Amino acid sequence: MEKREQLYEGKAKKVFATEDPNYVIVSYKDDATAFDGTKKGTIVGKGAINNRMTNLLMRKLEAQGVPTHYTEELNDRETLVKKVRIVPLEVIVRNISAGHFASRYGVSEGIVFESPVLEFSYKNDELHDPLLNDDHAIALGLATRDEIAQIRTYALRVNELLKDTLAAVGVTLVDFKLEFGKTEAGELVLADEISPDTCRFWDSKTGEKLDKDRFRRDLGNVEEAYEEMSRRMWGS
Amino acid sequence: MEKREQLYEGKAKKVFATEDPNYVIVSYKDDATAFDGTKKGTIVGKGAINNRMTNLLMRKLEAQGVPTHYTEELNDRETLVKKVRIVPLEVIVRNISAGHFASRYGVSEGIVFESPVLEFSYKNDELHDPLLNDDHAIALGLATRDEIAQIRTYALRVNELLKDTLAAVGVTLVDFKLEFGKTEAGELVLADEISPDTCRFWDSKTGEKLDKDRFRRDLGNVEEAYEEMSRRMWGS
Repeated sequence: MEKREQLYEGKAKKVFATEDPNYVIVSYKDDATAFDGTKKGTIVGKGAINNRMTNLLMRKLEAQGVPTHYTEELNDRETLVKKVRIVPLEVIVRNISAGHFASRYGVSEGIVFESPVLEFSYKNDELHDPLLNDDHAIALGLATRDEIAQIRTYALRVNELLKDTLAAVGVTLVDFKLEFGKTEAGELVLADEISPDTCRFWDSKTGEKLDKDRFRRDLGNVEEAYEEMSRRMWGS
Repeated sequence: MEKREQLYEGKAKKVFATEDPNYVIVSYKDDATAFDGTKKGTIVGKGAINNRMTNLLMRKLEAQGVPTHYTEELNDRETLVKKVRIVPLEVIVRNISAGHFASRYGVSEGIVFESPVLEFSYKNDELHDPLLNDDHAIALGLATRDEIAQIRTYALRVNELLKDTLAAVGVTLVDFKLEFGKTEAGELVLADEISPDTCRFWDSKTGEKLDKDRFRRDLGNVEEAYEEMSRRMWGS
């Protein structure tokens, strides 16, 4: 499909129109940001790794009954996806305490939860993506109660599948962020990406961080962490 | 019952032991604080009004099947209540957007919700009472899933009863905060208070604020608002 005008440029991806109004092309950048965009940098090779990893995982999820926007990998950095209206909720699933959960509630990182903890934030840069619950999301008209129930079901299924996939390559899935969208036809599908930018991956044996926390927290070996994740998933 | 040693002094109330370990005496103060205790003041007569209003409303709630800690009004400012272990959740029910809801989600005050919005905060001064959802509360061990379901049921029943009681005296119930506790015997009961300190009351015709927002926002006529609420509820 032909790549036409740029529709949108986000922090980590660009989106281009195609000749079919129901499809767009996502192009992954090496740009990295953190802390509401106040920290900026480049992680060389990130775009290609995130593109490939997202597509691999979305194909697996589709095969397991989770509908996604994924359509076709076009090249190293670019993928054809269904055009969706993004539901303005960041859907976060947590298996182990880390990041904002730990700081917000005054607990240490590394506490393993008995069952997954699911939370929503309102995707809104100006408001700094505030946490909200189902009632808030509905009152604000961000999603219907049915959509929220469907998103919760999908998100927990994604968690189970990702946990197993990653455990098989020695990686613990600590937490991750998903976004969902509605297609023109009204189907709710998983959108955005699943990558070291949007997940916390800890080496199952050493606890070493293999995700964007290396960039956020200035831990060094940022590119190496992305490459290590790539190696684990493809053996190369 | 005999008032013995002071067990606790909070921002708006003191709690005293009695000779029965299952009962304590709550004593309402005129002290007022806002914004995490950074704003302090006195609202003359508040303690007596809040004591009387809380007791009136708790007696009504008990009669309607919501168990409370209320036992006996001892005098103007003091009430005998069941001793409970407070569940460390602030339970907030909202009928109309105001306060933190409006600021957190970038909407104006005064939006009437189609159905009540219920939210929990983690009662923790050091962490500034952060918002949380059911999964968070359970993961942090603050309450069980059954307790949360029971609290939600009670809180919505309280909302229905209070809305009607207040509408009858020309007051709109905008939002309010409840706290629940567990008795020694393990019963979950409504605790704390229900007053202009913990509710937003708007005059149904004029929209005039008849609650602690007059103190928080320096609107003047603070005592008069509390007295007006007292007059509406007792005609005196």
